[in-house]
Amino acid sequence: MWNDLPSTTRTGASFSIFKKLLKTLLFREPQKKNIFLHVNDGSSLQSLQVVGGAELSDPLLTFGSAVEVTGTLRKSPHPQQPVELGADQIHVVGECNSVDFPFKIKERHSLEYIRQLPHLRCRTNVFSSLLRVRSEATTAVHSYFKSNGFLQIHTPTITSNDCEGAGELFQVEPSGPDFEEEVNFFSVPAFLTVSGQLHLEVMSGSFSRVYTFGPTFRAENSQSRRHLAEFFMVEAEISFTQSLEDLTKVMEGMFRSTTEHVLAHCADDVGLFHKHVTPGHRVSPEGQKCPPYSKEMITYSEAIDILNRSSENFTFPTDWGCDLKTEHEKYLVKHCGDVPVFITDYPYDLKPFYARDNQDQPKHTAAAVDLLVPGVGELCGGSLREERLSLLKARLEDVGLEEIYSWYLDLRRFGSVPHGGFGMGFERYLQCILGVNNIKDVIPFPRFSHSCLL
Amino acid sequence: MWNDLPSTTRTGASFSIFKKLLKTLLFREPQKKNIFLHVNDGSSLQSLQVVGGAELSDPLLTFGSAVEVTGTLRKSPHPQQPVELGADQIHVVGECNSVDFPFKIKERHSLEYIRQLPHLRCRTNVFSSLLRVRSEATTAVHSYFKSNGFLQIHTPTITSNDCEGAGELFQVEPSGPDFEEEVNFFSVPAFLTVSGQLHLEVMSGSFSRVYTFGPTFRAENSQSRRHLAEFFMVEAEISFTQSLEDLTKVMEGMFRSTTEHVLAHCADDVGLFHKHVTPGHRVSPEGQKCPPYSKEMITYSEAIDILNRSSENFTFPTDWGCDLKTEHEKYLVKHCGDVPVFITDYPYDLKPFYARDNQDQPKHTAAAVDLLVPGVGELCGGSLREERLSLLKARLEDVGLEEIYSWYLDLRRFGSVPHGGFGMGFERYLQCILGVNNIKDVIPFPRFSHSCLL
Repeated sequence: MWNDLPSTTRTGASFSIFKKLLKTLLFREPQKKNIFLHVNDGSSLQSLQVVGGAELSDPLLTFGSAVEVTGTLRKSPHPQQPVELGADQIHVVGECNSVDFPFKIKERHSLEYIRQLPHLRCRTNVFSSLLRVRSEATTAVHSYFKSNGFLQIHTPTITSNDCEGAGELFQVEPSGPDFEEEVNFFSVPAFLTVSGQLHLEVMSGSFSRVYTFGPTFRAENSQSRRHLAEFFMVEAEISFTQSLEDLTKVMEGMFRSTTEHVLAHCADDVGLFHKHVTPGHRVSPEGQKCPPYSKEMITYSEAIDILNRSSENFTFPTDWGCDLKTEHEKYLVKHCGDVPVFITDYPYDLKPFYARDNQDQPKHTAAAVDLLVPGVGELCGGSLREERLSLLKARLEDVGLEEIYSWYLDLRRFGSVPHGGFGMGFERYLQCILGVNNIKDVIPFPRFSHSCLL
Repeated sequence: MWNDLPSTTRTGASFSIFKKLLKTLLFREPQKKNIFLHVNDGSSLQSLQVVGGAELSDPLLTFGSAVEVTGTLRKSPHPQQPVELGADQIHVVGECNSVDFPFKIKERHSLEYIRQLPHLRCRTNVFSSLLRVRSEATTAVHSYFKSNGFLQIHTPTITSNDCEGAGELFQVEPSGPDFEEEVNFFSVPAFLTVSGQLHLEVMSGSFSRVYTFGPTFRAENSQSRRHLAEFFMVEAEISFTQSLEDLTKVMEGMFRSTTEHVLAHCADDVGLFHKHVTPGHRVSPEGQKCPPYSKEMITYSEAIDILNRSSENFTFPTDWGCDLKTEHEKYLVKHCGDVPVFITDYPYDLKPFYARDNQDQPKHTAAAVDLLVPGVGELCGGSLREERLSLLKARLEDVGLEEIYSWYLDLRRFGSVPHGGFGMGFERYLQCILGVNNIKDVIPFPRFSHSCLL
């Protein structure tokens, strides 16, 4: 949307000889003796202004070129920038043909347009801002877990499990002539992980709190603005808990701490999105529009009552036992006052084998919890895990998975502890705080059905 | 190797009522009135001793069971532990049948044995130590890059590139009935990444310093102690450099800073490996055996001279132009005094298309650098990248890749900058500092040919 190169290096307050290679954006003032460049090294949204005499003018100093500038950092006469660089020498180290360069000076390109150019879009202001926010949010997530006693586990990408028992898996096999004759490289069918949960549960047998943060995969044949074939997930598992509230506290703590960090470290970058991409979108410790500083917690059964009392015409049924669809989630968030909503205790039959049986009736539920947020819908999903061997075994037998998951039953045989965990889609988190509508615009290289550029 | 459960929770110095669910290791002293448990929550190698009266004795208090203990934390009479827990109540929350439990009390199980039990091996001392070291090393790597101005980029796992132009790729396709008819989910063949380098180079067009840290893949049909099908790689890319020394400084800084952090935060865990797994192995700021605090830097041509002057009988040829094999690397490290060795300026024809041409003759080299370390061999590999459009284009034409990599040429067309980068195998780093011989023992869930457990 902004064809300006990401502009200005942060320079601090020292006034000294300054030599650095920088990207440049040139403004030549006609009829005047000075030339002005806006240069940027990617460290912030703001640009450093370089001022040079007319003798430094060079036809190669085009928009998008890379330059080396030698000069003196000095106080700027402009109130909006603390310093500027008075250039003694300017050297173009990387030319850029403005006619061929797909971003144009002073023009706002749409997110859709720059998405077609994954190898160049980081050179727009908006996408370099996104990448700084993403990097800081990643740092903040790690830092939250670290400071709360969680051990980081590198759960595997390739797995022989199918965590959800659902389809939508990518299978992995070697390509190339050496392997054509082999049936399975790993001797068993191997897939890309849909969740690190079961591997984290392994670690719950030894550590009180563990987490993982990495890529997960769904072979979903969808071009929707909400789905990717490869996306990042933060997952945590907490031992010694029998309470969904313990899980919601960690979800909330992670959200709050990460958002505070991002707002503190990337104010300009977040501001760019809120000003130009989603005008009116706000995220702040006081803001009610997004982060769960104020929140609601309702049961699934209460949610169904709310939906059935409403005057909305839903496309999908709202009988007890039906899954909540996007339209329902949206309504519930709105009904609760556009705040994050935790929904707990889902129908037992809707949840996977590992969800803990609440053993209630006649409406049989499992101890599961989802976090819905405005604009995005489901951000987190979690549950207590069935730690009771007999119940877990019976359920796995029911679905015919007892043999495949005998290792998982072992975890309950040998010093089992009550535990639970959750996962958060990292891209959805970024959509939530930035107000970005399409998930493809918050990941460096989006992969989805019919698209794997680069 | 150690069947003791990872033992003791860190307790601090406060003496107060203490209630926590913990894993237990029971010692009952026959004929005495007290029972003793060693309990652990995974936070450190050391165990917390729980002392209880004989009336708390319970046949379910077996090795490997999980317990909840209520009592008073008090000064311990033993000099090796600052505190012990005087138990008022002990409740077994998770039983463990010692006969079936594959780890036995007071027995040292081999790394090979515990490797067969990936769902339980985190419950041995040695593997819980490994996981703590791995988590701290991960934190330290992120922290090094963060504090040196690097932006973290989530490079993709699924890619349509083949970075090295070599084989050994895993291909990705959806499994299941919905997709049987489709040729390619992504419309193009898609692979698991062998390196995030080219994606990082994209980012070098906008940011001065970027890095990535995630899983990478090789479909290598090898059961060797040095190879995995899925392993973690740290990769960095630095803009505005024309010097290999800039790269070696970052490699060295990362190694030093990570190792210092691990030694400061996991002294007991590292000590366990150096005492019991590889007796005599040392890593310390003064130690010469591993970290590059003292180092050598030689060119490939000098390395060839050294090899040819030696009296060793090498299996593989040592003519100028031949690739260095493990036997050569080992000799070179030994020759240089068992210190890390940087080898620079490899034959041009040995390096991939992106390596920067040194334009020398008659021995034509590229600006590439490898870091060899004692015990492990190649730990890092890097190069300056060919930023000159005409040279890069000519080379891609030579190998017939010009069309596929037209996007990569675009990076040189529009404001190219001199840059370079490197990758470090994270598991090899862990092997190096811990002295672990087999790479399968430093990753939570090893994947290699014919094995994908869990």
